[in-house]
Amino acid sequence: MVIADYFPIWDKLTPQQQKTLSDAAFPRHIPAGTVVHRGDLDCVGLLLIRSGQLRCYILSDEGREITIYRLFERDICLFSASCMMESIQFELHIEAEKDTEVFVLPPEMYRGLMEQSAPIANYTRELMSARFSEVMWLMEQIMWKSFDKRLASFLLEESALDGDCLKITHEKIANHLGTAREVVTRMLRYFQNEGFVRLTRGTIEILDRKGLSALSDA
Amino acid sequence: MVIADYFPIWDKLTPQQQKTLSDAAFPRHIPAGTVVHRGDLDCVGLLLIRSGQLRCYILSDEGREITIYRLFERDICLFSASCMMESIQFELHIEAEKDTEVFVLPPEMYRGLMEQSAPIANYTRELMSARFSEVMWLMEQIMWKSFDKRLASFLLEESALDGDCLKITHEKIANHLGTAREVVTRMLRYFQNEGFVRLTRGTIEILDRKGLSALSDA
Repeated sequence: MVIADYFPIWDKLTPQQQKTLSDAAFPRHIPAGTVVHRGDLDCVGLLLIRSGQLRCYILSDEGREITIYRLFERDICLFSASCMMESIQFELHIEAEKDTEVFVLPPEMYRGLMEQSAPIANYTRELMSARFSEVMWLMEQIMWKSFDKRLASFLLEESALDGDCLKITHEKIANHLGTAREVVTRMLRYFQNEGFVRLTRGTIEILDRKGLSALSDA
Repeated sequence: MVIADYFPIWDKLTPQQQKTLSDAAFPRHIPAGTVVHRGDLDCVGLLLIRSGQLRCYILSDEGREITIYRLFERDICLFSASCMMESIQFELHIEAEKDTEVFVLPPEMYRGLMEQSAPIANYTRELMSARFSEVMWLMEQIMWKSFDKRLASFLLEESALDGDCLKITHEKIANHLGTAREVVTRMLRYFQNEGFVRLTRGTIEILDRKGLSALSDA
C-alpha cells in the first residue's frame, strides 16, 4: 500500500528523491465510468494504478471514439500529465472502466524529478516508447487488417479480461474500434451465423474461441 | 559543419560529454533513394540531418506502405537507433527522399550519454513525444478524415516542399497514404475535373490551392 512497492525504479532514486515522491503522491479512488482526463482541459498528474482498469481513447469532433490502449495494475498513465511534456500535441481522453485505485503523482513534482534524475527521465522515455509501440500496432491493425479480423481480436481480448460472456453494447464496441454501431451489429450477426458467438440482449457469448483466433490471425 | 552547431542541447552537456559526442559522431552521405533502416534488421544509430530529407514509413507483409512522418534539416532520427530503446516494438523503415547529409551518432555512445545525463534523456523523451504527436495526428486523419481530404492535404504539403508542379507517380502517393494506386488515380481525376489540378504524364500541377485548402479543412 506504499508507493515504494509500486514505483518501478524506486531503488534507483536517491533517498531525497524517494522522500519527494512519497510526500507528494496521494491515493485516489476513481469510480467506474469516471472520465479522469479530457485532452488539454486538465492535467491531473501521472496515475500509478494499484488496481482497476483505465482506457485511453481519442475523440473526434463528431463524438466518435477509438480506444488507443488500456492500463492495468502497476501501469503508469503518463498522458494524464501531458501538460508536463511540451512536445505532446494530441488530446487523449482517459476513463476508468472499472473501479480503480491509483496513486496520483503531481506533474510539477514529477517534472522536477525528471530534470534532476537521468534514471527517472530514461524510465519515462521507455514508458512512452511502450505506449508508442501500442499505437503503432493499432495503426497497423487499422491500415492492414479488415474489420472482421479486428472485431475477432477485440472479442478475444475482452474475453481474456472478463470471461466468455461479455456484457458490452454494440455501441461501446463501435467506440473502441472507431466505427459505427451498425457496422458492429452486422459483423456480430455474421459471427453468430458462423457459430463463433451467441447474441442475447446486452451480452455476447463467445462459443468458438478457436474459430475467432483463426479468423483474427488469418 | 561541426556537430556543436547542430546538436540542439549542446550547451547542457559537460565538456566531457561534448567530447564523447563529437569524437564518436561521423558524417555520412546518403544518396536519394537509399533505404537506411529496415525495422529491426539494423541499428545504424541516430541520424542528425545536416541537409536533405528522410521519410519514415511502415510496411505491410504485402508490401503496402504508409508514410508516418518526414525529417528535415536539424531534425534527429531516433528510430534508426531503435535497438537502443528496449520498449520500441514496431518496425519503421527509413529512406532518403533527397540526397541527404547526416551526422551518425552511434547507438552505444548515445545510450551511454542518456544514462548519465538527465538533459540528454529528457531531450530524447521530448523528441519521442514530438514523433508520437505526429503519429497520433496521422491516426486521427486516417480514422476521421475521408480520402479526398487526406489527398488534398498531401498535395498541399508536397507543394510546400517542392513547388506547384509535383513530379510524383500515383503509385508513390498510394504508398504515402496507405491505399491502392487506383484509388489515388480516381480521386486525382476528380480533382482535375474540379479544376484543382492538371494531370500530365508523371506530374501533377496544382492549379487551385484555395480549393484544395477548402476541401482539406472542410
